[in-house]
Amino acid sequence: MSAGGIFVWELLGTATLILLGNGVVANHVLRKNNGHNAGFLFITVGWGFAVFAGASLASPSGAHLNPAVTLGLAIAGKTPWSEVPVYVAGQMVGAILGAVLCWLTYKLQFDDHPEPENTLGIFSTGPLIPNKAWNLVTEIIGTFVLVAWILLSPTVKTSGDGTPSFGNSALGYAGVAFVVLVIGTSLGGPTGYAINPARDLGPRLAYAFVLPIRGKADPNWGYSWVPVVGPLTGGALAAILYLAVHNLT
Amino acid sequence: MSAGGIFVWELLGTATLILLGNGVVANHVLRKNNGHNAGFLFITVGWGFAVFAGASLASPSGAHLNPAVTLGLAIAGKTPWSEVPVYVAGQMVGAILGAVLCWLTYKLQFDDHPEPENTLGIFSTGPLIPNKAWNLVTEIIGTFVLVAWILLSPTVKTSGDGTPSFGNSALGYAGVAFVVLVIGTSLGGPTGYAINPARDLGPRLAYAFVLPIRGKADPNWGYSWVPVVGPLTGGALAAILYLAVHNLT
Amino acid sequence: MSAGGIFVWELLGTATLILLGNGVVANHVLRKNNGHNAGFLFITVGWGFAVFAGASLASPSGAHLNPAVTLGLAIAGKTPWSEVPVYVAGQMVGAILGAVLCWLTYKLQFDDHPEPENTLGIFSTGPLIPNKAWNLVTEIIGTFVLVAWILLSPTVKTSGDGTPSFGNSALGYAGVAFVVLVIGTSLGGPTGYAINPARDLGPRLAYAFVLPIRGKADPNWGYSWVPVVGPLTGGALAAILYLAVHNLT
Amino acid sequence: MSAGGIFVWELLGTATLILLGNGVVANHVLRKNNGHNAGFLFITVGWGFAVFAGASLASPSGAHLNPAVTLGLAIAGKTPWSEVPVYVAGQMVGAILGAVLCWLTYKLQFDDHPEPENTLGIFSTGPLIPNKAWNLVTEIIGTFVLVAWILLSPTVKTSGDGTPSFGNSALGYAGVAFVVLVIGTSLGGPTGYAINPARDLGPRLAYAFVLPIRGKADPNWGYSWVPVVGPLTGGALAAILYLAVHNLT
Repeated sequence: MSAGGIFVWELLGTATLILLGNGVVANHVLRKNNGHNAGFLFITVGWGFAVFAGASLASPSGAHLNPAVTLGLAIAGKTPWSEVPVYVAGQMVGAILGAVLCWLTYKLQFDDHPEPENTLGIFSTGPLIPNKAWNLVTEIIGTFVLVAWILLSPTVKTSGDGTPSFGNSALGYAGVAFVVLVIGTSLGGPTGYAINPARDLGPRLAYAFVLPIRGKADPNWGYSWVPVVGPLTGGALAAILYLAVHNLT
Repeated sequence: MSAGGIFVWELLGTATLILLGNGVVANHVLRKNNGHNAGFLFITVGWGFAVFAGASLASPSGAHLNPAVTLGLAIAGKTPWSEVPVYVAGQMVGAILGAVLCWLTYKLQFDDHPEPENTLGIFSTGPLIPNKAWNLVTEIIGTFVLVAWILLSPTVKTSGDGTPSFGNSALGYAGVAFVVLVIGTSLGGPTGYAINPARDLGPRLAYAFVLPIRGKADPNWGYSWVPVVGPLTGGALAAILYLAVHNLT
Repeated sequence: MSAGGIFVWELLGTATLILLGNGVVANHVLRKNNGHNAGFLFITVGWGFAVFAGASLASPSGAHLNPAVTLGLAIAGKTPWSEVPVYVAGQMVGAILGAVLCWLTYKLQFDDHPEPENTLGIFSTGPLIPNKAWNLVTEIIGTFVLVAWILLSPTVKTSGDGTPSFGNSALGYAGVAFVVLVIGTSLGGPTGYAINPARDLGPRLAYAFVLPIRGKADPNWGYSWVPVVGPLTGGALAAILYLAVHNLT
Repeated sequence: MSAGGIFVWELLGTATLILLGNGVVANHVLRKNNGHNAGFLFITVGWGFAVFAGASLASPSGAHLNPAVTLGLAIAGKTPWSEVPVYVAGQMVGAILGAVLCWLTYKLQFDDHPEPENTLGIFSTGPLIPNKAWNLVTEIIGTFVLVAWILLSPTVKTSGDGTPSFGNSALGYAGVAFVVLVIGTSLGGPTGYAINPARDLGPRLAYAFVLPIRGKADPNWGYSWVPVVGPLTGGALAAILYLAVHNLT
């Protein structure tokens, strides 16, 4: 696929992912919403099927939607390194766009919210117990599970040039959605499972520099590298496991 | 497919969708129900699989069940404009019929309900913070996601004459159900995600003119155009995106 | 398939369905359970996937598991009338066996339960507002949706002799599970959605005559015909709709 | 498949299963987690899709991930007895590894937890009403349903040498995930549904001998044989049923 095609499909898929993923948290956090305080199962279901919608949409580019996935596929030899910047650019622009669309959807609720300082969590993750080393471990493990599953599960088909990873049926995308759902329920407790640098950094940039939310919180730049470095590390480790298993069996 | 066939299948599918979709809200809202106050995840699961049931039933007509989908498919060149009125007629009659069946199912609960003035929300959507311009934005974005996904995702197959959009396996219908589920969890907070003019207007007509609910509320005609114009606008914008991407890549 | 085969597979499938379906209610109702008071979404998810387990197990006999389904398929000309008694016999014996297995699973919880008079609801349905005529309407509509979907949806394949209705892949069974799930969320409020005479009568017989629960409630025979007659009526009406649509389109 | 291959894939699949399964309980039990007290539906969804992730990953070895499944397949003649020790070894090592990864993910939460004596339940099951005979019955029935479904459902394909049980599509793995989900909702009330000796014994060993949790509870060795013997008995009984049905029909 052309670089332009990769950029467009990754942008569209990631924008969908972030609009729907940030949206479920906005629904939960902001008051005067039907889903206010609907709980963490609600949030993990929303993020899981946000992945379904975004990935099944972005099938033509292989539906990476995540720099950690792109990195893992590149290390594993499934995506050319020359395409990596295009993938990541589409993902980052898409993530910022998705965050803006989420804000537009919930504009009245943002205006009405009595505690604007707690709105950062709608867009970006943060640890419940801050400790950068251990938060990093949590993000590494979560992303490792995601990328290892994508690389190792025979239910996922990948081709050499990074095009359709999950095939053209809804089935493969349900699979990755279920995996993200369970990473949320099971590994999302301590840090909110960024497991995707674009998912965390794109909306954080939008929150800090684009969105006119009144009285908003500090974007917490001090923590912002953890949900970037952690997922990239986890994705790289998963690719190393893949290569080891591939050679072994 | 003949006009009569389209009408019958769209009627059956939309009646199923609305019976089950209004039904889950009735279960939640009306007291002396097993599902009373079961929460917004419960409601979004109910509406999501209501789409599964209705769409997998109405496969022969392509399972539009939604004038915004029909409009988007027509603009995209996938459904002939001459068939649009037949689709919409089947959808509207089906929606009214589904609302009547919902009322029959919950007849005793309606009679017992101490606050009949809050029963409108079972049938039609309303904003939690009324502001027609921004409510419109929310409805446009939600429907845009739905119709863009149907048009752009390679997991959805469409044919030139509007017949089977999702194929004859349960799989495609699970896909669209998951997308509606996540639109609910993620974009349904502010306005209750009508994202379908027939879904909102049909039951509102039934509520206003057909159903003998005692002490019922004003049908809120002042708001009623928002969940019609918003979804149609979102569907049209999605078709424009589809045509742009189609030309681009 | 031989009559013996039908009997065995319907027995196994229905026993699985009832063990798991009654089980989720036992988990919810009886105290000192992990799922105590886990809510109605929990119950509808349990019953929905109980159908998945039972139906995907009983594929060789066509996985009716429900006399209302068997009746509808017979009226529609898809199951020979001569096989109907064998199907229903397997379903009834299986339902009683499933109820006994549920009781064994929760034996300690039954013994510990301080209100044994409210244990009937684990096994059989009852109306939240008793009114036999309207309760009947609710059961008719719920079963009508189930059987109409099975007969009309092109995603369900049926053969002339009643053998595999849903094919040999897990997919068709996920479809019927989703439909039962949404019938629960959406139509299960007033009467607990029996929608299956064997599901209601079999466990009621077990409760009344087999299970040694101390201080148990009256089996409510006065209501017991509603969840038998309602589902059979709904199944028959669905078959009539099927024949009408079949002739029409 | 070579013994080494079986060992590696069973290890990877079971580690994934236990990391995600123990993880959802950790999220629920330990405070300062996003999923703290998220409920039993949350836990059953987490375990269900943990099975999806682990089983769809371990497809090359047939994805047993459970000595009770391996035993059932061996008795049924589908897995050579000579391979049974390799399967079980991979499962046990994987389970211990998964428990360690879960502890690493939740390290800060473990340190912060004010009641370390209640952390055993994250790793291993225990009865809400202790009574070894009846707890055994509950575990036998739960595992019987799982293994009988795997052996009898035509939606599951097995080959003579124990290789791919569920095929190479995500579909079969969604099936077994749904079955484990419903065993959880429906039979998991009294004992927490171990239904897998490796799932219970591996993490219990990790808890007792490996993990440096301060002030941890007694590993409850007195009960530990129940979730080993019960599942093995249930798996064996399911294989006997399979052989009987196989001869009968």
